[in-house]
Amino acid sequence: MARIPPVNASGTHDYLPRDLARRNHVFALLRETFERYGYEPLETPAIENTNVLEGKYGEEGEKLLFRILKRGRSLESAASALDDGTARTAGALSRALSDEALRYDLTVPFARVIAAQQGKLLLPFRRYQMQPVWRADRPQQGRFREFYQCDVDCVGSASVTVEAEMLAMVSEVFKRLGFTRFVIRVNHRALLAALLESEGVASELRAGVLVVIDKLDKIGADGVKSELTGLSVPVDVVDRLMVAVSITGAPETVVEQLSQKTRLGEHASGVAALDDLKRLFGYLRDLGVPEGRYAFDIATVRGLSYYTGIICEFFAEDAPIGSLGAGGRYDELIGQFTGRDLPCVGVSFGLDRIFTAMDLLGLGAEIPVTATQALVTLLGPGNVAASFAAAQALRAADVRTEVYADEAKALKAQISFADKKGIPLLIVVGDDERAAGTVTLRDLRARQQETLPLNQLAARAREILGLDALGGHGTSISEIC
Amino acid sequence: MARIPPVNASGTHDYLPRDLARRNHVFALLRETFERYGYEPLETPAIENTNVLEGKYGEEGEKLLFRILKRGRSLESAASALDDGTARTAGALSRALSDEALRYDLTVPFARVIAAQQGKLLLPFRRYQMQPVWRADRPQQGRFREFYQCDVDCVGSASVTVEAEMLAMVSEVFKRLGFTRFVIRVNHRALLAALLESEGVASELRAGVLVVIDKLDKIGADGVKSELTGLSVPVDVVDRLMVAVSITGAPETVVEQLSQKTRLGEHASGVAALDDLKRLFGYLRDLGVPEGRYAFDIATVRGLSYYTGIICEFFAEDAPIGSLGAGGRYDELIGQFTGRDLPCVGVSFGLDRIFTAMDLLGLGAEIPVTATQALVTLLGPGNVAASFAAAQALRAADVRTEVYADEAKALKAQISFADKKGIPLLIVVGDDERAAGTVTLRDLRARQQETLPLNQLAARAREILGLDALGGHGTSISEIC
Repeated sequence: MARIPPVNASGTHDYLPRDLARRNHVFALLRETFERYGYEPLETPAIENTNVLEGKYGEEGEKLLFRILKRGRSLESAASALDDGTARTAGALSRALSDEALRYDLTVPFARVIAAQQGKLLLPFRRYQMQPVWRADRPQQGRFREFYQCDVDCVGSASVTVEAEMLAMVSEVFKRLGFTRFVIRVNHRALLAALLESEGVASELRAGVLVVIDKLDKIGADGVKSELTGLSVPVDVVDRLMVAVSITGAPETVVEQLSQKTRLGEHASGVAALDDLKRLFGYLRDLGVPEGRYAFDIATVRGLSYYTGIICEFFAEDAPIGSLGAGGRYDELIGQFTGRDLPCVGVSFGLDRIFTAMDLLGLGAEIPVTATQALVTLLGPGNVAASFAAAQALRAADVRTEVYADEAKALKAQISFADKKGIPLLIVVGDDERAAGTVTLRDLRARQQETLPLNQLAARAREILGLDALGGHGTSISEIC
Repeated sequence: MARIPPVNASGTHDYLPRDLARRNHVFALLRETFERYGYEPLETPAIENTNVLEGKYGEEGEKLLFRILKRGRSLESAASALDDGTARTAGALSRALSDEALRYDLTVPFARVIAAQQGKLLLPFRRYQMQPVWRADRPQQGRFREFYQCDVDCVGSASVTVEAEMLAMVSEVFKRLGFTRFVIRVNHRALLAALLESEGVASELRAGVLVVIDKLDKIGADGVKSELTGLSVPVDVVDRLMVAVSITGAPETVVEQLSQKTRLGEHASGVAALDDLKRLFGYLRDLGVPEGRYAFDIATVRGLSYYTGIICEFFAEDAPIGSLGAGGRYDELIGQFTGRDLPCVGVSFGLDRIFTAMDLLGLGAEIPVTATQALVTLLGPGNVAASFAAAQALRAADVRTEVYADEAKALKAQISFADKKGIPLLIVVGDDERAAGTVTLRDLRARQQETLPLNQLAARAREILGLDALGGHGTSISEIC
C-alpha cells in the first residue's frame, strides 16, 4: 500500500495524553460540580437531521454546517435530478445532496430532546451536556472546526431560585478551578426593554441603543452618551438613560436606585424585572455566594435574541480576554419544536477561553502531566516475575502503574523514560533486589531513593504520592484481576 | 416558525441521564482499570481526511463511511465538473463531492497519530481510546450508526510481557464489572500458519482450513474433521490436524503437547510461537491471573488479516452471545503510514455486547439510576433561604443535591418527583422545620424519617448513603462557592 500522509482533517487536532490530563481534570471538576447541584448528564448524537438544524443559526451559521453526503441510490438519484446542465449554488447543492449534518451547538439538540420526550420527561429537568460541536469556520490560531461546548440548563421552572442556584454553581466552578478574581455580571432582558420603552426611546432605535450600551466597558459613560446622541436619541432621553447607566454599587443598591431614579417602577414588566433581580441577589446571599462574585451590570446585553429574563456573563477580572461563559433565561425557544413554550434557564461555559485564562493566570500547574504514578523497571527476563509482583502490589493499592515494556533495555533508558513522561515514582527491580525480596523505590521529584521489602512498597508509594492511607484493607493480587 | 418534528437522525439515539448513569459507571471503571496498568487516554477528531480512511475497510466497509459534503466554491466546482450529463455511480459521486469522512473505527486514526508523532512520541506508548464511531449500516434492533468503541493498544514493544499485562488488565476489567465465569481464549497467528505449513496443507487451502477450525465450538471435532475432508485436504493431513485440534487441558500442558504431538517443534516460526505462548502463560501466573480465566484455544482464529502474533477473544461462559472483545499482536499495520513497521499489541472491548451480557447476568443492578443523592424541598417563598442552607450544607459535604425548582408546588408533588427519579434522600424544610432550625430527613428507600438540627444533616445523610465519614473537615458553605 502506498504511504498515506498522516495528516489531520483541516481545523481538527489530536488530544495526546498530556493534553488530556489537563482537559480531563477540568472536565471532571465541571461534571462533579454540576452533579453536586443536581444536574445530570445528557448526550445527543453527533448527526442530526438537517431540518432540525436549519433556520437556527442564521445564514452565515448555516454555511458552516458540516453536512453528510447521501449514500448509494439516494445519492445517485439526487445527483441525476440535479443533472440538467443548470449551474447550482452551494446552498442548493447541499440541500439536494444531503439531509443530515453534524451538531453545530448543544442548544438545538437539547430542545429537540425536550420536544421528543414531551410528557415522558419529569419536569423540572436539569441537565448538563459536554460534547464536541462542528463548524466549518476558516481554521486559524486557537479556533478549531471541532471543539467542545459545555451547557447546563434547567427546563420547566419559572422560579428565580433556578437562576440563583445556577449562579452559585458557576461561582463554585470558577472557585474550584482556582480563579480568585472572577465576577458574574447580571442584567435582565425585560428590564432593558422596559427601560428603553419607559424612557421613551423610539422602537426603531432600541436595538441600536442596546449595542451602544453594551460598549460601556470599552468606551466609558462619555462615549456611550456621545454615541447615543449620534443615534438621534433626543437629548432629554439620553440624559435619563445616562442616569440608569451611571448607577453603580452593590447589586441590591443598584436595583433600589434603578427603581427610584428611572421610570421602571411605573412599568409593569419593569417592576417584575426589578423584583426578579432583587430576589436573585437575596437568594445568592442565602446560598452563601460571597459579595463581589456577582454584580449588576446594565451594560450586559447578550446578543442572542432568545433570552427573555435574567441574563449573565462570567469574567476573570485579571484575565482580560472577554467573557468565560454566559447564559440566561429563555422561555420561548423550546416552543419552536413543541408548539408550547417551556420556561428554561441555561448557562454555557466557554471552555477554550477558560483554558486560555488558566494559562494566563498560571492555574492548574499542579495537574499532573500523566495519570501514571509509578514505573516498574523490567531488567532482563529473570526479573520479570519480581517486577510483575511489585506492579500488582501497587495496582492492588490503586497506584496507577506502568511496567516498562521492554526487558532488554538498560536501566538508564528506563529511568529516562519515566523522567520524560513525568512519572513521579520509579521502582527498580534488579538482580540484587530480586535475590533479597526487596525493591528500590526512587522518588523522581525529590531525587531520593530507598530499598524496602516488597510487602511495604504499596503503602510507602501511597505515602510519597500523598494518597490517603490504605484503611487496613491489604488487597491481595488475586482480588484485582 | 413552523413546528419541526423532533426526530433523531436514522440509527442514532439520545442518552438520557438514566442511560448515562449506567454507561458512565462502566466507562469510568474501564478507564480506571486501564490507567491502573499505565495506559493513558488519547482522543482523535471525528472527522478524518478520506484518504486516511480509504482502502482500510474493504469495499463493503467503505460504502458505510459517512462522508462530509464539500462546501461553498469547492462544492460548486466539484458539482460543475460532474455536470456533463453522464450518470455516475455513488462511489464516483462521493469521491468527487467529498474529501472528509467520519471516523469508522479507532485503529486507523490511532495509526495515523503514531505516524504523525513519529520521533516525537516516547516509545513504548500505551494508550486507550473510548470514542464514538460512525457506520451507515442499515439501522436495526441493537445496531446503531453511531456507537462507542473502546481500544487499548501498546506500540513500540515486541516483548510478550505486553500481551501478558494486557490480558491481566482484561481479566481485572471483567472481574470488576462483576463477571465470574469469563475466559480469555488465546491462540497465536504464527502458530496456526506454522501448523498448516508443517502438516502439509496446500497453501491455497489454508484460509479455508482456518475457517473450518474456527467453527470447532459450533460443530465439534467430528464436524471439523468431516468439513476438512470435504475441502479435499488429504486424509493423513486431516488426521494430523485433528491431533492438534483435539489437545485439551491447562494452557501450559497444551503448549507442551503441541510441541510433542505435532511437527511445530521442527518449524522455526512454530517453535517461536510455542515459546511466546509458554512465556505468556508463565507471565499470567506471575501476574496473579487465576487459572481458568484464560485458556489456549486452537479454534480462536480471528478474521482480521493484520494480526501477526498472539491473538485472543474474551467470553462470558454464562452469557452465550459471542465474544465480548478481542485483540492480538499486529506488527505491520502502522507501517502502512510510516513506511516502517512498529510492533503493536491491542485489544478492543465490545461495549454493546458487554452491556447485553451484563443485562443477561443481572450485573450492575446496584448502579444508581440517577447521580443525584438528595432532593431538598422548596415549600413557599418564606422557606427558600432555609432550603438553600440545607442544600449548601449537603453539597459542602459532597452530597449531590437538587433543590426542587418550584417553590409553589405541594409537598406531595415534590416527594413524588424524588420517588420517580430514584433519588434516595428527601430533605423536607417546611414552616415548622424553619421555625425550629431543623430539617426532616426522609430515607426514601428504607421509608423512614427523622427530624434533626440543620448542622447534623450532612453527616447523617452521608451515613445513610454509605459514604465514608467526613474526616473531621466540616466544610463551610463559603468554602464551596
